[in-house]
Amino acid sequence: MQTVNVDALERATELATRFEARAHQHDDDAAFPSADIDDLREAGLLGLLVPERLGGLGARFADYVDVAVVLAGGSPATALVFNMHASVTGALAGIPDEHARALGVPEWALRARDAMLQEAADGAVYGVAISEPQVGSRLSALTTAYEREGDGYRLRGTKSACSGAGHLDAYLVAARAARDPDQGVISYFLVPEGDGIVAGSGWDPLGMRATASNALRLDVHVPSDRLVGGLEGLVLPLAWSMPQWLVASYAAVYVGVAEAAVQSGADYLRRRLDAGRNVTSSVRRRLGRADADVQAARLVLQHAARLVDDNPGEPETNRWLYRTKLLAGDVAMSAVASVAEACGLGALSRGAPLERLFRDARFGAIMPPASDACADYLGATTLGLDPVVAMEETPW
Amino acid sequence: MQTVNVDALERATELATRFEARAHQHDDDAAFPSADIDDLREAGLLGLLVPERLGGLGARFADYVDVAVVLAGGSPATALVFNMHASVTGALAGIPDEHARALGVPEWALRARDAMLQEAADGAVYGVAISEPQVGSRLSALTTAYEREGDGYRLRGTKSACSGAGHLDAYLVAARAARDPDQGVISYFLVPEGDGIVAGSGWDPLGMRATASNALRLDVHVPSDRLVGGLEGLVLPLAWSMPQWLVASYAAVYVGVAEAAVQSGADYLRRRLDAGRNVTSSVRRRLGRADADVQAARLVLQHAARLVDDNPGEPETNRWLYRTKLLAGDVAMSAVASVAEACGLGALSRGAPLERLFRDARFGAIMPPASDACADYLGATTLGLDPVVAMEETPW
Amino acid sequence: MQTVNVDALERATELATRFEARAHQHDDDAAFPSADIDDLREAGLLGLLVPERLGGLGARFADYVDVAVVLAGGSPATALVFNMHASVTGALAGIPDEHARALGVPEWALRARDAMLQEAADGAVYGVAISEPQVGSRLSALTTAYEREGDGYRLRGTKSACSGAGHLDAYLVAARAARDPDQGVISYFLVPEGDGIVAGSGWDPLGMRATASNALRLDVHVPSDRLVGGLEGLVLPLAWSMPQWLVASYAAVYVGVAEAAVQSGADYLRRRLDAGRNVTSSVRRRLGRADADVQAARLVLQHAARLVDDNPGEPETNRWLYRTKLLAGDVAMSAVASVAEACGLGALSRGAPLERLFRDARFGAIMPPASDACADYLGATTLGLDPVVAMEETPW
Amino acid sequence: MQTVNVDALERATELATRFEARAHQHDDDAAFPSADIDDLREAGLLGLLVPERLGGLGARFADYVDVAVVLAGGSPATALVFNMHASVTGALAGIPDEHARALGVPEWALRARDAMLQEAADGAVYGVAISEPQVGSRLSALTTAYEREGDGYRLRGTKSACSGAGHLDAYLVAARAARDPDQGVISYFLVPEGDGIVAGSGWDPLGMRATASNALRLDVHVPSDRLVGGLEGLVLPLAWSMPQWLVASYAAVYVGVAEAAVQSGADYLRRRLDAGRNVTSSVRRRLGRADADVQAARLVLQHAARLVDDNPGEPETNRWLYRTKLLAGDVAMSAVASVAEACGLGALSRGAPLERLFRDARFGAIMPPASDACADYLGATTLGLDPVVAMEETPW
Repeated sequence: MQTVNVDALERATELATRFEARAHQHDDDAAFPSADIDDLREAGLLGLLVPERLGGLGARFADYVDVAVVLAGGSPATALVFNMHASVTGALAGIPDEHARALGVPEWALRARDAMLQEAADGAVYGVAISEPQVGSRLSALTTAYEREGDGYRLRGTKSACSGAGHLDAYLVAARAARDPDQGVISYFLVPEGDGIVAGSGWDPLGMRATASNALRLDVHVPSDRLVGGLEGLVLPLAWSMPQWLVASYAAVYVGVAEAAVQSGADYLRRRLDAGRNVTSSVRRRLGRADADVQAARLVLQHAARLVDDNPGEPETNRWLYRTKLLAGDVAMSAVASVAEACGLGALSRGAPLERLFRDARFGAIMPPASDACADYLGATTLGLDPVVAMEETPW
Repeated sequence: MQTVNVDALERATELATRFEARAHQHDDDAAFPSADIDDLREAGLLGLLVPERLGGLGARFADYVDVAVVLAGGSPATALVFNMHASVTGALAGIPDEHARALGVPEWALRARDAMLQEAADGAVYGVAISEPQVGSRLSALTTAYEREGDGYRLRGTKSACSGAGHLDAYLVAARAARDPDQGVISYFLVPEGDGIVAGSGWDPLGMRATASNALRLDVHVPSDRLVGGLEGLVLPLAWSMPQWLVASYAAVYVGVAEAAVQSGADYLRRRLDAGRNVTSSVRRRLGRADADVQAARLVLQHAARLVDDNPGEPETNRWLYRTKLLAGDVAMSAVASVAEACGLGALSRGAPLERLFRDARFGAIMPPASDACADYLGATTLGLDPVVAMEETPW
Repeated sequence: MQTVNVDALERATELATRFEARAHQHDDDAAFPSADIDDLREAGLLGLLVPERLGGLGARFADYVDVAVVLAGGSPATALVFNMHASVTGALAGIPDEHARALGVPEWALRARDAMLQEAADGAVYGVAISEPQVGSRLSALTTAYEREGDGYRLRGTKSACSGAGHLDAYLVAARAARDPDQGVISYFLVPEGDGIVAGSGWDPLGMRATASNALRLDVHVPSDRLVGGLEGLVLPLAWSMPQWLVASYAAVYVGVAEAAVQSGADYLRRRLDAGRNVTSSVRRRLGRADADVQAARLVLQHAARLVDDNPGEPETNRWLYRTKLLAGDVAMSAVASVAEACGLGALSRGAPLERLFRDARFGAIMPPASDACADYLGATTLGLDPVVAMEETPW
Repeated sequence: MQTVNVDALERATELATRFEARAHQHDDDAAFPSADIDDLREAGLLGLLVPERLGGLGARFADYVDVAVVLAGGSPATALVFNMHASVTGALAGIPDEHARALGVPEWALRARDAMLQEAADGAVYGVAISEPQVGSRLSALTTAYEREGDGYRLRGTKSACSGAGHLDAYLVAARAARDPDQGVISYFLVPEGDGIVAGSGWDPLGMRATASNALRLDVHVPSDRLVGGLEGLVLPLAWSMPQWLVASYAAVYVGVAEAAVQSGADYLRRRLDAGRNVTSSVRRRLGRADADVQAARLVLQHAARLVDDNPGEPETNRWLYRTKLLAGDVAMSAVASVAEACGLGALSRGAPLERLFRDARFGAIMPPASDACADYLGATTLGLDPVVAMEETPW
């Protein structure tokens, strides 16, 4: 709904200002941005992707990307944490009931899903715990395993790079059926925080420092109704039916990073002009090229998001998602590096926005699917090849 | 109107196929594409920008860019000639009567303008003769002069790089009032082909060879009603009120060049695959990156064109026009160069589409405003500077 | 010897001026540069790589690259034809007698080799006919076959892209022993021009048009003493012991192309300055970056060539050869494209040096090993991997 | 002397290992690397540029750059501090006595200079305090002033970005004669640490954190013999006669940064391979391109340094110095960014070498003369223009 969008955007814009004021400290401490998350909760944005009938804002993917760009302009790390929550709620909300039923999802599982979404609208924060040490996000190689235990399941394993580990209310965990590991039955659980879940520490990276993307060690009992869809092995159809949450939702965050870099550089240079100093043509040109590249990436993002809402799952929609990820990841790095060069050392003191954005931006092209993998996907599909086969050599 | 758009696009798509079949020969001979122009006339596309009440299709700028992209996919040089015609008719049709009257345009001049547009709808082809040797397109330095002669004017001077010189029905000429050269009164005339107009020869360039962009020597009497707007000195307000025809309409042609390069490379590689040969990951990645860049440029073009139609003359609209020119010019070169590298020597025989596109593409970033000038404009406006002042050192 | 070098360079510099005067015509006609080759013969440069004891100049690889850069500055296509001749004579002259004897080469074959070199010093021109349609230069897939016939051999097959086809005195041909095609015995013959050799036609490419790189159809008797080394199956050790002629000798030509582009652009802009017109800072910067990149590539070329002379076959020497090919191929394209953008349309009339260089330059990164393959080789060896295994997926 | 060079390089190589072990801590604390400087002192490297007759190693500029590359491989920040010391001692030692006498330098000033050099050989560390807040390094705008006071001078002013501020034994200070500020007499003093010199704090930047490049407030009496050359106004001839210390000596540090990035990335990926994981072709190609670019920059650096030693002050020598700065600054950023993308998040934990190098590298193209200014200089001189006039619009 247009009104939802506008309203959510306005709230996000207001929050971004508050996030920005805290961003340096969170970055410095590599601290989870709890205050930002509280703000998101109070503003009702944790229910952004939750249907209105369940108390949420019922936003579509195109709404999400606009909100994410704005939030990233305040704090990219917070926007990434929000992205994970949005991915879980968006994916849960995104499959029409009829489609779920056609896949064999029982009614009680639909009700369980609604409950999880309702909790999010009420303020629960969710995260994603899929990738594993050594394995990355290749589902075929996951080692975290589950088996029946009482009326539920026991999950055992270690997840890596789980944004918000230890700070969230539940984690979307992918695990392998222990009974027959070779058969490769992979299932998703939304595992509630509690005993048997231990977050690691030590997340202390170059950029995106406030995401607390630590390891998560699991040896935990999970109730039956936390098996997503109530069916084992539902993972792959989900993954392929909603690539926007796997491929492109990050992209919105990095478009926000890139826009913030241009804005931040322009503000810095504007102050230099106001102090009576000069701005050379080479500085203007760097700023101008960055502006053009960033606005192009934003347009691609918004176009892809509208296609997701209007023609989900279409090959051309998916191609636009990969274009989005490729361009957003690359432009974040190139724009911030060139703007930093235009501004000079004075803009790169620790804690200055551009300094932090320079570090945050480096992660965009690297987060899966990496830029080179996106380019491969696009080239393969341009040639009419199946991208999975064509990219066999490029596991991600 | 949506129906106009769809209909015109369909006709353009059909023509593009015919253009492509002739493009190699036109390129080889550096010959004016008369057969293509005849096709455009028969399809009614010479009236694309002419209002329906005057017998045209009444298309808007957003329609034009879609048509131009498609035509350029068949023959970039023909699309450039068409662009000049569209610029003249679009500019004439683009100023609302009230606005013209407010500038002092008399009623007879409005009727004269309608007549010129009607002739275009009936099949007349117009071109642009503004730039001059040594001077380029800087209006302030033009030397072509006019003075009163009988009930009209005499124009004397030499124009350069006039696409279609010697092949058109009339030329839009900018000239300086001879009576007081220092005062810098510059006026536009739509000068009909006839005695006193001599086209040069020798246009034999790297690319865009079929535009016949030769010199035009003028020593000619022009009737009063061919003074555009019926007013002397109307040039500058026109130029500044309709930057789309000065800045961005070329861009559509180069987006078409870039798209054709990706398509042509993909076709070539597809045939290699069909012959049982391999396509390496580095080839796929080159194709994939080119695809993403080109599609981004196309989106920017279409977005800018919609803004032109909905919010003409706004600063943000103009910024999108410069973004469009910058990205289209740069992507045409980078995409065709990388796709050529991906395909290899076999795709670069003279007459092969990619070979011609490689040469055509080099002109995109160079045609005014050049890419570096666009970047300067964007950087200056991002800083809140007046781009004209900021770019003083960059005459174009 | 230093004196040889200086003397040869001086002759080459003088010839380059003559080549340049003919280059436009040769390019326009896609005609073999016979007059240039005659000049090379008269100047004694066909014996550049021939030992002094056999009547040649006894130059080393470092001498060759300096000469090739200079010749390419006059006519890149002629420099490529010369490169093929230099590759054959350089490879024949490059293996020390002791090394040849250790490989089993008989004395009569050493004498036959000396005779071939002597003929080159006396004015014979040699070319290379290795690659084949569909197969490229992968020796393992060659289909041209030879078998014993009388006291010599019969060769049958078709070669592709043989520079100078139909204009040379002999061709270095790689062929497969017909008696047991699966065993993959590949041998080299220096096949004299004569009956049974038919050059194709139709070489009409984007750039490097004057090389006459047509097909060569062979059904020909070859005397025994034209089996290189007098031994079958000697190809692979040769190929691997002298990668400079397979990997880096082209590079000298493209460094020459890039230098000529910068020089040509500077001359053009200098004339613009002399005519009282302006050169903007963005033009200066494009020229300056091109200059830096080109001079860096030239330095890498010369460094690699000295290593070839001093430490042939060493892994680090080979790495410098791949660096040379990668940088020379890439800089030729990027420098000429940026200089062309700096100069504008006026510098790109057909026949203008920059126009031709823009087309010639595109082939540098494409000629095997292509830039992407070179990068792969360098990355693999940086990681301590065997580049052949690492690049399995990248056949060239 | 060759032996000096080899010996100094060996010592530097050994020290680099020790520097590297401390680099993370120094970076984390933004702490001056006192332990590294002590190591340099003990190894005798503070006398690297001091003539042997004064107790130094008598190294030439070509020796210096080799040492600086190696030191930067251990700790770029320490190498920058060392660069400042080397600049002061190298500049003092670099002017032949006859040349100095011809400029009017009295004998007592030559003796004073020798004493300063001898102190360096004995372990004194010097720094550079030239640039000022708002002014940068434009000598014409400096505000720090000096006037006679007793048998010496009083200096008053504030310097910015003085590497090692507060940790050194003396500072090379540029100041303006207070008696007639408009006349623009600028003189250099080597001001000993002591009362009246107060170092600022707060240096806390993105990269190069361990240089302690703080402000320096001066209100200090300086003895007569600390006026460099014993003559007022000697600054400009010095600056123009020894551009290597103003333009290219930084470059060695950034070549070292770039080499370390490639090495560090290769080590990381090698460990991944050793753990049985894959390295894709796109990763190999990123590493390979970075390797080629970095080695080219190193070759340019060494070539320029040899020219400085053999043909100081020649226009072509100076052009190579600007090429060096341009390529080194740009390659440091591009290589480390691409290698980081190839390695992924695992290589970018804070304290990991690549993480620190990514931040350090950003300063290379920015430090004056910035890359865009170098490109302008090169373009201007390629056109035969006076670069100072041509670059008027580009103050640095």
